[in-house]
Amino acid sequence: MDELLEQILAECHPYTAQGNLANYIPELAKANKNDLGIYIISSDDRIHRAGDYGKKFTIQSIVKPILLLLALMDNGIDVVREHVGVEATGKPFDAINVNEQALLSDHINPMVNMGAILMCTLIKGDTYQEKFERLLDLTRKLADNNEICLNEDVYLSEKRTGSKNRALAYMLKTYGMIQDDVEDVLDCYFRACSIQITCGDLARIGYILANHGRMPYTGERVFPAEYASFVNAILSTCGMYDGSGEFAVKVGVPAKSGVGGGIMAVVPTRMGIGIFSPALDAKGNSVAGIKALELLSEKLFLSIF
Amino acid sequence: MDELLEQILAECHPYTAQGNLANYIPELAKANKNDLGIYIISSDDRIHRAGDYGKKFTIQSIVKPILLLLALMDNGIDVVREHVGVEATGKPFDAINVNEQALLSDHINPMVNMGAILMCTLIKGDTYQEKFERLLDLTRKLADNNEICLNEDVYLSEKRTGSKNRALAYMLKTYGMIQDDVEDVLDCYFRACSIQITCGDLARIGYILANHGRMPYTGERVFPAEYASFVNAILSTCGMYDGSGEFAVKVGVPAKSGVGGGIMAVVPTRMGIGIFSPALDAKGNSVAGIKALELLSEKLFLSIF
Amino acid sequence: MDELLEQILAECHPYTAQGNLANYIPELAKANKNDLGIYIISSDDRIHRAGDYGKKFTIQSIVKPILLLLALMDNGIDVVREHVGVEATGKPFDAINVNEQALLSDHINPMVNMGAILMCTLIKGDTYQEKFERLLDLTRKLADNNEICLNEDVYLSEKRTGSKNRALAYMLKTYGMIQDDVEDVLDCYFRACSIQITCGDLARIGYILANHGRMPYTGERVFPAEYASFVNAILSTCGMYDGSGEFAVKVGVPAKSGVGGGIMAVVPTRMGIGIFSPALDAKGNSVAGIKALELLSEKLFLSIF
Amino acid sequence: MDELLEQILAECHPYTAQGNLANYIPELAKANKNDLGIYIISSDDRIHRAGDYGKKFTIQSIVKPILLLLALMDNGIDVVREHVGVEATGKPFDAINVNEQALLSDHINPMVNMGAILMCTLIKGDTYQEKFERLLDLTRKLADNNEICLNEDVYLSEKRTGSKNRALAYMLKTYGMIQDDVEDVLDCYFRACSIQITCGDLARIGYILANHGRMPYTGERVFPAEYASFVNAILSTCGMYDGSGEFAVKVGVPAKSGVGGGIMAVVPTRMGIGIFSPALDAKGNSVAGIKALELLSEKLFLSIF
Repeated sequence: MDELLEQILAECHPYTAQGNLANYIPELAKANKNDLGIYIISSDDRIHRAGDYGKKFTIQSIVKPILLLLALMDNGIDVVREHVGVEATGKPFDAINVNEQALLSDHINPMVNMGAILMCTLIKGDTYQEKFERLLDLTRKLADNNEICLNEDVYLSEKRTGSKNRALAYMLKTYGMIQDDVEDVLDCYFRACSIQITCGDLARIGYILANHGRMPYTGERVFPAEYASFVNAILSTCGMYDGSGEFAVKVGVPAKSGVGGGIMAVVPTRMGIGIFSPALDAKGNSVAGIKALELLSEKLFLSIF
Repeated sequence: MDELLEQILAECHPYTAQGNLANYIPELAKANKNDLGIYIISSDDRIHRAGDYGKKFTIQSIVKPILLLLALMDNGIDVVREHVGVEATGKPFDAINVNEQALLSDHINPMVNMGAILMCTLIKGDTYQEKFERLLDLTRKLADNNEICLNEDVYLSEKRTGSKNRALAYMLKTYGMIQDDVEDVLDCYFRACSIQITCGDLARIGYILANHGRMPYTGERVFPAEYASFVNAILSTCGMYDGSGEFAVKVGVPAKSGVGGGIMAVVPTRMGIGIFSPALDAKGNSVAGIKALELLSEKLFLSIF
Repeated sequence: MDELLEQILAECHPYTAQGNLANYIPELAKANKNDLGIYIISSDDRIHRAGDYGKKFTIQSIVKPILLLLALMDNGIDVVREHVGVEATGKPFDAINVNEQALLSDHINPMVNMGAILMCTLIKGDTYQEKFERLLDLTRKLADNNEICLNEDVYLSEKRTGSKNRALAYMLKTYGMIQDDVEDVLDCYFRACSIQITCGDLARIGYILANHGRMPYTGERVFPAEYASFVNAILSTCGMYDGSGEFAVKVGVPAKSGVGGGIMAVVPTRMGIGIFSPALDAKGNSVAGIKALELLSEKLFLSIF
Repeated sequence: MDELLEQILAECHPYTAQGNLANYIPELAKANKNDLGIYIISSDDRIHRAGDYGKKFTIQSIVKPILLLLALMDNGIDVVREHVGVEATGKPFDAINVNEQALLSDHINPMVNMGAILMCTLIKGDTYQEKFERLLDLTRKLADNNEICLNEDVYLSEKRTGSKNRALAYMLKTYGMIQDDVEDVLDCYFRACSIQITCGDLARIGYILANHGRMPYTGERVFPAEYASFVNAILSTCGMYDGSGEFAVKVGVPAKSGVGGGIMAVVPTRMGIGIFSPALDAKGNSVAGIKALELLSEKLFLSIF
């Protein structure tokens, strides 16, 4: 297995040259385009890893399933479903996703920015600072890593330059979907995206989703099994932006990517996978990361379909 | 298990009152709104069935995965992918699905009408009559039922009244995606939608998709395993029209519905399910059929997520 | 004045090289790209003309205001307004112009194809052949030219290749806006677009719109003044496709262009202008023709704004 | 003529009951729904007025042509055209008006909010406070009324509640069309919309546009004639929101309405008209105001078409 990982990394490494670093915030453009790391935890609690698996990077959109999880844990499925829909939007991740006449909650998916911004409002906490602290706590718990913290530079960079997210949030405010101060909500969202993690953290979080809410080793239940199925189902239809259909056909497991270069893949009942490779394709997905998952899925028959 | 089915049917029967018969072609409006039948074949080749499982109805959109399968068998994945995309469109099944400027193959999904019409052109055959015959042969083979045939009344009704499909097909012609005579292509498509089947037929076809291309009992391989994964992945993201996300969350298996009231569900490696209940919700999915699959999924832990 | 026209033609002639012949039907691509002609009839019944004003070409979209006029003459403003709106669509001339949910008459403008196709259904006549004969009669009357007739080659070419218009017409049928046989309606529309005229014909028709319904020389009233204002107002906001705003700013008179290379301009109370130059810009308007109207408007202070 | 105005007001007054006060900002909802006033200055410098012509109200969208004028005076037509287009958008006034992929300057019209916000950035001035002062000065000059000033309550209300305008401005920022601080730009725009005027002010401003840049009485030129034609042309195609086509057909003169209940109409070479009646139709236009202009146009043959 370790041999297989090395072989896959070698085969995928050239693909890093085909992508580009995210450049919409200056901090992300400082990454090393050639990095490629992978980390796997299987259900029998074995660990396999290779390449730059120890590098830190910001979680970006991979925080969306965690935001959704916390919103589910705080409110239950029914309340969350009143605020967001679960259909694929057929649009890019930061799509404006409104028709001119009306913005309906059913049109907002928690895996696109608008929906994730809404999730921030659903998390419990007296202040948005407190909401964020609770999100960070959950992330640390799921990743079994208390050292996870905010990347201040990325956070400040996001906060300074996030015009499109501001536009999306003011749109939500316009349609009465945000009651609180828009800048407060956005501050929480920008912090959430700037949480700094490694491949190992993503693998551990993915493992718990794969094992329907239970921690590795201890088997401790962190959240109900039905929340895992809920999140995995949405990841499967919408987790890889508007490349989700292609990913389902070629890899066939629930997964979420972020523009920081991370991918968290969930192989139900079998494994959690964390990948890092910051060179992105036009849809915002890690080029070499997707290729590595394709090969891994082929070799290990991971597709759930 | 038989008891479970009876219990589920009893619980779901009241839901038939909540839906409406498809009325866009007069023939479909002649169905009995109260019908509800279910038929399951499991991987150990056991059969379970209940209710109106013997009733005949037209396959309608459930022919789409069969059209896709035949196009794959005739051309391979790469050629098919040159003609259609695999992303969810975020639109209803008969959506016009073009932006004003350009219609690109990547925007056309084989599970919506435009894509299914295109699949007709990819099937091998000297004439569209021959293409249709080959489709009918494959359907009979997959369903292990040589008596499957066309419902002439529905076919003629579709052919007479199919303005929207004509509009969609001429749009494809406009953008050079159809080379042949539009009426010939549509005739094949209208026939395809009018194939008459039962729950048992759907269960057997679903079984083969669940078992990655092998027939029940004999284990004979009808198509390569990778075509099954390809079709199941698309069903999972787009099979239930713009209710696919909701279905993934609540049921969690690849499935395809048709406005004739049928649903074919594919439980990978475990079972094929055929359902018939012609009262539809606003998205064109069988109301009681979806409810029955929800209960079945919950009781038997069918969700793949 | 004749000197001015010659000077304008000389200045505009180089612009013919910047455009392209319409190529969506083969017949139109046979025109001479360098042609440029202009014909003016002023309200004091003087005639000025220069260049290729005697060349024949097909009327194409310039038939739209005549179709609208005949629909108004046959039904009155109120009935016509029940079938079409008068707002600019912000879309190209052959835009699909439907949102997914519903196609409302208010969204259909008689200066885009869908609306013009609808006008064919409003014209009186027992058959679509008779409707077309009445349209041809009106065109001859307005142009004071009984020799105007159909260009059979263009008509047959349109009929053979008009996939997009077929798509648009079947869309209208889908939404119940066309009751009659779609091919019959389209046949009338294709014939209408294939009427063969010259710059002089367009100038005479434009003159009558400029003089609120009265013929040159005789002053005979052909239609009520309010129909002229109605048509001129729509020409002003929508006559030059999605270049209508630019044209209003630069030329400032109601006008209609066609992909055959013609432009009919209406200078209210002052003149009718016919222009022919078949090299088109990306929006389907004659490049040199628009330039000539810009210069003419500047020199003669034609803008109504 | 005064008799005619009284008669028209009497006929139109009942229409005030059909509309509703703008309620998107609380201050506007405080107006008197029954108010109806009209003020006309003709080119021979006569004044006619009737009804509530002395009431003060906020200019709202009628500031858009003044913003455009000042941007033209400060930069010339070419520079302004680099930043905005002139085509009708086919959308409501506050439409998001972007497609998902790209926001192009050609898609932004200065008569919709996005374009007007952009005009604020084009006005000369070291600060946005100074830009606004220059706009206020021009408004006073055009209206020949030095007492025109800001309605502080409306301004603060707009500033506090303007989520949709914030969304639009951040969208412009996202696409690099705004360089400056978004809140600074919006502050200028909110102030601009909150300028308080009367029917007489609107009539005088309209008069200057009708007389191609010259003041009444003195004949002093305030801006070049071509800027008047430019503004009048855009008003004609886009001045009455997505009711511009209907207005062109029924009234037939360039005009601009605001949700404060004002309408400024420009009858080229003949008159400037100011109307006030705060009960609005669904498109944001004054119901009784439009009716009054219809009658006036019919009686005085005002249509330019």
